[in-house]
Amino acid sequence: MIKIVLLGGGNVAHHLATKFISTEGIELVQIYNRTLSNILKFSDNVAITNNLKELKEADLYIISISDNEISTLSSKLNIPNKLIVHTSGSMNLSELNSISRKGVFYPLQSFSKDTKIDFSEVPFCLETENDEDFKLLQKITNKMGSSSYKIDSEQREKLHVAAVFVNNFVNHLYTLGNEICDENNIPFDILKPLINETSNKLADLHPCKAQTGPAKRGDTKTIENHLKILSKNKQEIYTLLTKSIANSYGKKL
Amino acid sequence: MIKIVLLGGGNVAHHLATKFISTEGIELVQIYNRTLSNILKFSDNVAITNNLKELKEADLYIISISDNEISTLSSKLNIPNKLIVHTSGSMNLSELNSISRKGVFYPLQSFSKDTKIDFSEVPFCLETENDEDFKLLQKITNKMGSSSYKIDSEQREKLHVAAVFVNNFVNHLYTLGNEICDENNIPFDILKPLINETSNKLADLHPCKAQTGPAKRGDTKTIENHLKILSKNKQEIYTLLTKSIANSYGKKL
Repeated sequence: MIKIVLLGGGNVAHHLATKFISTEGIELVQIYNRTLSNILKFSDNVAITNNLKELKEADLYIISISDNEISTLSSKLNIPNKLIVHTSGSMNLSELNSISRKGVFYPLQSFSKDTKIDFSEVPFCLETENDEDFKLLQKITNKMGSSSYKIDSEQREKLHVAAVFVNNFVNHLYTLGNEICDENNIPFDILKPLINETSNKLADLHPCKAQTGPAKRGDTKTIENHLKILSKNKQEIYTLLTKSIANSYGKKL
Repeated sequence: MIKIVLLGGGNVAHHLATKFISTEGIELVQIYNRTLSNILKFSDNVAITNNLKELKEADLYIISISDNEISTLSSKLNIPNKLIVHTSGSMNLSELNSISRKGVFYPLQSFSKDTKIDFSEVPFCLETENDEDFKLLQKITNKMGSSSYKIDSEQREKLHVAAVFVNNFVNHLYTLGNEICDENNIPFDILKPLINETSNKLADLHPCKAQTGPAKRGDTKTIENHLKILSKNKQEIYTLLTKSIANSYGKKL
């Protein structure tokens, strides 16, 4: 049985706690949060506390709080010879300001508040200072049914930028597509099968091979027509992305 | 029984022919193509020809060929009082240069060559000159298990631009994310669950409400750190999309 203490009461902490409670081989022995009310809902299943001096014994202490509070909270923990990890995608391992062994346990997924999370669709980026700790974290993700990857802090920073491109920026393009539809009384639903197909294709095809469209073809006539009907902001984005695609495929526009 | 003659031997024509042959209530009576070899595979099930003078009687003639050949081919057809449609997303209804009744039968989906198409995931954009012809096209899409939308030529042009944003440009962002991963020895697979979640969310959530990330939060420190590690082309794209997101949510960067 792997014993875990969870520190945090936010979105990710909530989903982790729910998962740990229902996972065989894992015992969530305690949840700490500054504000008890945020974790009260777990009090039937788990000991809860808002006092760092009352932390229980465990194999692993997971800090799942705002990025800019990790350093302060970890410095207050006095649990030598224990493994402490944070769950942040953008903070270095060394952000843990502690005499304990350190690690990172970062779930790379977008967590919505009220949606149940399928942890088989949550890859974890793991980092530790030694092999034994790595194996412990890996064992935990296995029990949760999640995949895991060895990703050091430097790689994680790059991965975070890549995630901005494929998640935040992609969602913004959906928003712009939606705006074009709204402005022309076209139901956005009509584009959803295409959107799904675009992401589903990645299962079998490198995105570089899946590229289609006027920029890839170097179809300047269509590009000119499209630019004419776009507002200024969308024109700029259209022009830059078209240029980038054309460059990737050696087309001159 | 609705009788259809299909003109074309390319990708879309191939998928339509395959679907028509297996759809109850539809009879594909003939396929025409300039080059017979491209449609030979259908000859067991359907009459084929490369001679426009031998076109059979049908309720609907579907021209599914390259955009810039639609005008020429349609002008050669001498079938008055018949309905002729094209399947192009970017061509006007009036591109059909014909004495016949005209329409558009545009499947809005990305068709890969060797992949079987699930037509329940293919919305059709329909346009005709009169109601009766519209009902015929709608009846056909119903039989195929596809959804259909009334979209006129002007709307279709806008829709095509929106599709460039949510398909071509999105796929390019996947490519850039993949490049960042490759450059840092990170398996791109780690991002695929996030990519799927980003598109799946649209089923329940307006993309505008689903936006997350540093640009949305106005998190200038993270944005600066990200820009430092990007190459010039990715920096430009990152800057422009970040600005566009920030503007959408009233953040100053």
